[in-house]
Amino acid sequence: MSKEASYGRFFSSKAVGAKASMIRELFKALGKEDIVFFAGGAPAPESFPTALVGELAEEVIRDKGNEALQYGMTLGQPELREALLEWLIRKYGFKGDDLDIIITASSQQALDLAGRVFINPGDYIAVESPTYLAALQAFRYYEPKYVMVKMDDEGLMPEDLELKLRKLREKGRSIKFLYTVPTYQNPSGVTMSESRRKELLNLASQYDFLIIEDNPYSELRYYGAPVKTVKSFDDEGRVIYFGTLSKILAPGLRIGWAVGPKEIIRKFEVMKQSLDLCTSPLNQLIAWKYISEGYLEKHIPEIIQLYRPRRNAMIKALQDFMPEGVKWTEPKGGMFAWVKLPEEINTTELLNNALSKGVAYVPGESFYPNRDITNCLRLNFTYEKEERIRLGIQRLSQVIEEALRS
Amino acid sequence: MSKEASYGRFFSSKAVGAKASMIRELFKALGKEDIVFFAGGAPAPESFPTALVGELAEEVIRDKGNEALQYGMTLGQPELREALLEWLIRKYGFKGDDLDIIITASSQQALDLAGRVFINPGDYIAVESPTYLAALQAFRYYEPKYVMVKMDDEGLMPEDLELKLRKLREKGRSIKFLYTVPTYQNPSGVTMSESRRKELLNLASQYDFLIIEDNPYSELRYYGAPVKTVKSFDDEGRVIYFGTLSKILAPGLRIGWAVGPKEIIRKFEVMKQSLDLCTSPLNQLIAWKYISEGYLEKHIPEIIQLYRPRRNAMIKALQDFMPEGVKWTEPKGGMFAWVKLPEEINTTELLNNALSKGVAYVPGESFYPNRDITNCLRLNFTYEKEERIRLGIQRLSQVIEEALRS
Repeated sequence: MSKEASYGRFFSSKAVGAKASMIRELFKALGKEDIVFFAGGAPAPESFPTALVGELAEEVIRDKGNEALQYGMTLGQPELREALLEWLIRKYGFKGDDLDIIITASSQQALDLAGRVFINPGDYIAVESPTYLAALQAFRYYEPKYVMVKMDDEGLMPEDLELKLRKLREKGRSIKFLYTVPTYQNPSGVTMSESRRKELLNLASQYDFLIIEDNPYSELRYYGAPVKTVKSFDDEGRVIYFGTLSKILAPGLRIGWAVGPKEIIRKFEVMKQSLDLCTSPLNQLIAWKYISEGYLEKHIPEIIQLYRPRRNAMIKALQDFMPEGVKWTEPKGGMFAWVKLPEEINTTELLNNALSKGVAYVPGESFYPNRDITNCLRLNFTYEKEERIRLGIQRLSQVIEEALRS
Repeated sequence: MSKEASYGRFFSSKAVGAKASMIRELFKALGKEDIVFFAGGAPAPESFPTALVGELAEEVIRDKGNEALQYGMTLGQPELREALLEWLIRKYGFKGDDLDIIITASSQQALDLAGRVFINPGDYIAVESPTYLAALQAFRYYEPKYVMVKMDDEGLMPEDLELKLRKLREKGRSIKFLYTVPTYQNPSGVTMSESRRKELLNLASQYDFLIIEDNPYSELRYYGAPVKTVKSFDDEGRVIYFGTLSKILAPGLRIGWAVGPKEIIRKFEVMKQSLDLCTSPLNQLIAWKYISEGYLEKHIPEIIQLYRPRRNAMIKALQDFMPEGVKWTEPKGGMFAWVKLPEEINTTELLNNALSKGVAYVPGESFYPNRDITNCLRLNFTYEKEERIRLGIQRLSQVIEEALRS
């Protein structure tokens, strides 16, 4: 084959149709030019307990080298699974003797596994509108049909979900699961109220579906009381809970987990065998030391101290610079604010202009399966420092102002 | 749902049908009782350069903490990709300016990615008979049809492959790729001759298919001259090459790679985005230090020194203890010998008896897609020490002898 030859004839139809993640592509530009980077979901490197992790790594390899460097169980290292379950039960009130946990290559792998384990082509699943784009990318491979659930300031609207479930039922159909990021949602920053969490569980029982609760952000709480997980109200074993160390320790370890009924976790295990055999035992044991020796609980307040002023700087800058007609959410935790522009502005088309003016964001359409809402954008407020955040929002406001004028 | 409730109605049909890997299940018994463990593919823990890896981990986190602990590129860390490509070009004579490399969560993920990228349900692929069981497990999800290629002492038989390709062509069909472990094959221990490697490439050109060359073992060479890779003869960009550090450094790092034409590696990249975003940058940087500072080249002879006597101990014990009518391969490298029993013996049925007598192996049927050959078994000779190997083969021989008598 010559250099110009294409390999297209060898690709599966899904590979031909696969689209690169816009964020992953934007990520390639990170740090290359003077661009204020609101596009990622990456923690600030200043938040990493670097020296400590270095010591723990050395310690773990010295004391448990034969486990750390060897193949591990597909379910994960027993020490870490136990420490995490203990933490989740104590802190979030998970209950039931049918709980099991599997360690995954961060939550992205858990999302892919959910697709593998539950979705037949054409099956319905429900997601928030908007929802986390990498979840959509993971599910997409499995060809589900989507039920989009409307959101307001209290998170997803149960009455909208019920309406849609009833219509499906009339057609003899139902959803396999609802995927939600209920706390400091990605991308909107919105948090589901406690009463709605209970309503959601009632609907799950009534319409017989599962709930995937993806909860990477709840520890990053800047204002308000701690938010109870959906899982903590789950009496029927309907909630599969995803967590990760990426936002509260370090994404570089690639450690996440799924907690749920044993029968379901067993399916995750069998499917994970053929994906990667196991997640790095070395990284799992570093995480285990970090958690079981109490560093996690001690370190989270330091991350909050770092991020709260950044969140405030972004809200203040939005207030100071954004032109009339632009709206945004004011999240009490997490990493993201969601900005809604007047409908005539297409944020995907706007992106090149923004990049050339030195500011990066994620266009909102990626957060909708049909990419049919095009006037929103997602801003990350944890990666850049306060002054840079102000500068970036100023730049973005000018780009938007120009677009509104033309 | 009550504790007895089943979640079966929520599972995808592929999840319902998924089978656990026999090896992974056997692995759970490892170290639990006095069982001589020939069932794994795990390196001997004595082969790990533990102290050094501990130092490198600490060093990498100290010097490059912001990269090691952060999200990384989906393709992998540039330092490691460069060091690996340099090593592969120098050592294996890879050529062509169309080469690219992606870092994967060991070769298991590369196998899954190959399934995703190439296989539509019903597509034909060719595999050696027998072939690596975890490759079958990975491909199985994508529902290929198999062309089984016969093997003899020189590896797969090109004339058998050609016969089957011609028959397929008569039906208007062809294969997408051939998957091969050409050097010290898993499970058989057999190595493909150089002339057959060239014949294979000629067939690939003539019948227009790709070749996946999975090469985890070639550095573990106990006898004979270095074996040239199929990829080193590849003038047409038809070979995708998989490698791993699992057998020459440590499986716990979960570092593997796929090398091939840019267009194909790009598809692997896009598919990997939704699987796990990236492989742990921490582990990649440890691997990079290890390779670029020359430790890999220095350490491999030490592993060989450790494994060669074990390989010899197994062959000697097989000669000393096995009853008449049992045959085995005598591999010049790698980790496995393949044992063929008289046809009336079913090695899957024999396993429980063997376990109760204190010896574990992998039944051969797992290495055939149709599980229709049931009188073979795979033995790993690198995990246990010489005396234990002798003891284990003695136990196994007794179990087989009893079965032959009954």
